[in-house]
Amino acid sequence: MTRAFTIWLTGRPRAGKTTLGGLLCRALTDLGLAAEYLDGDELRRALSPGLGFSAQERRSHALRAAYLAGMLNRHGVICVVGLISPQAEARREARRQLGEFVEVYLDCPLEQAINRDQTGLYQKALAGQIKNLTGLDDPYEPPQDPELHLHTHRQGPRECLEAIFGFLDQAGLLPALGARADSGQAAEVYSPAEERQIKQRLRALGYL
Amino acid sequence: MTRAFTIWLTGRPRAGKTTLGGLLCRALTDLGLAAEYLDGDELRRALSPGLGFSAQERRSHALRAAYLAGMLNRHGVICVVGLISPQAEARREARRQLGEFVEVYLDCPLEQAINRDQTGLYQKALAGQIKNLTGLDDPYEPPQDPELHLHTHRQGPRECLEAIFGFLDQAGLLPALGARADSGQAAEVYSPAEERQIKQRLRALGYL
Repeated sequence: MTRAFTIWLTGRPRAGKTTLGGLLCRALTDLGLAAEYLDGDELRRALSPGLGFSAQERRSHALRAAYLAGMLNRHGVICVVGLISPQAEARREARRQLGEFVEVYLDCPLEQAINRDQTGLYQKALAGQIKNLTGLDDPYEPPQDPELHLHTHRQGPRECLEAIFGFLDQAGLLPALGARADSGQAAEVYSPAEERQIKQRLRALGYL
Repeated sequence: MTRAFTIWLTGRPRAGKTTLGGLLCRALTDLGLAAEYLDGDELRRALSPGLGFSAQERRSHALRAAYLAGMLNRHGVICVVGLISPQAEARREARRQLGEFVEVYLDCPLEQAINRDQTGLYQKALAGQIKNLTGLDDPYEPPQDPELHLHTHRQGPRECLEAIFGFLDQAGLLPALGARADSGQAAEVYSPAEERQIKQRLRALGYL
């Protein structure tokens, strides 16, 4: 069984969670790994259609994602979670439940998020048509000590991806990737040369 | 990747879903397979604490379990779902979404279910203290054409387990089990002799 873990992308709406989360999950899959992307909006549709946006409901949403990620992790599936998850306490609880937890803060200042928004989400909120948008009506508590702090208004998806794989490498999580990438081999140890190969494969696949 | 599937245990409260589901999941795991038991009551606690028991909510509950099972199946994890799931239409929709679907009807007549109940559930419902109990206030639509129809007031858990493994064998689902049981071997074909070994291993493990 591979040593699975959860990469938890937190940040304001339009900070780039869905874009980076999808790309990261595809990169892991292309490396031959079992990976799943759990998107906050899709989880609301599939599992919690009646759930609102109060503090308690946001906490509940985050812990449902953690429950799902934990179940997948137990079966060796790496999870990428993309969720606003604005509450520091809820993220801490997710970390406590999951154990192997990589918190990645996608930091995008509010004005930049508004500028990037092509969907009219912020405009609707500014016009009072929708409520409880994180960063406007609702607080976002930035992570104080995330494993990674990325600035998505300055760093593009590829640069973010490279930073995440760099972290996984340093944290010793790439060996687990290597074991699975060899599909069926039970190799537990992964040499530095082989770790470089992972980066090379990501470049060859066009991710880096 | 193994050919994963979902075994869907449906039946009235106290028909034996949780007992058989847990036993079946442990037997699959002891065979070296990736398996998960999704229990209706636990899913309500973990994912749908606010969900009630109206027809629409029961349907939603069943489809949330199917969503979770589908995600696990995609990663080669066999799912055992234990859920009253009283609506034939919701079970059909779960089958449609999942594809590889083994519906097992745990048939226990109401009076037997009441007799078996050590928890006071039926007594409370008969006294009017709880409402919407399937089989009393709420309808249970028995499967018309399940893969297996077991009579849990007459057949004990071991007999039920043997019937389920017999079905999986006949349906050609045991070869997939065999491939995973050899941990890492990519054997796609499983001979009749090897299929008999699965039964022998289950007996040796004390399940049959």
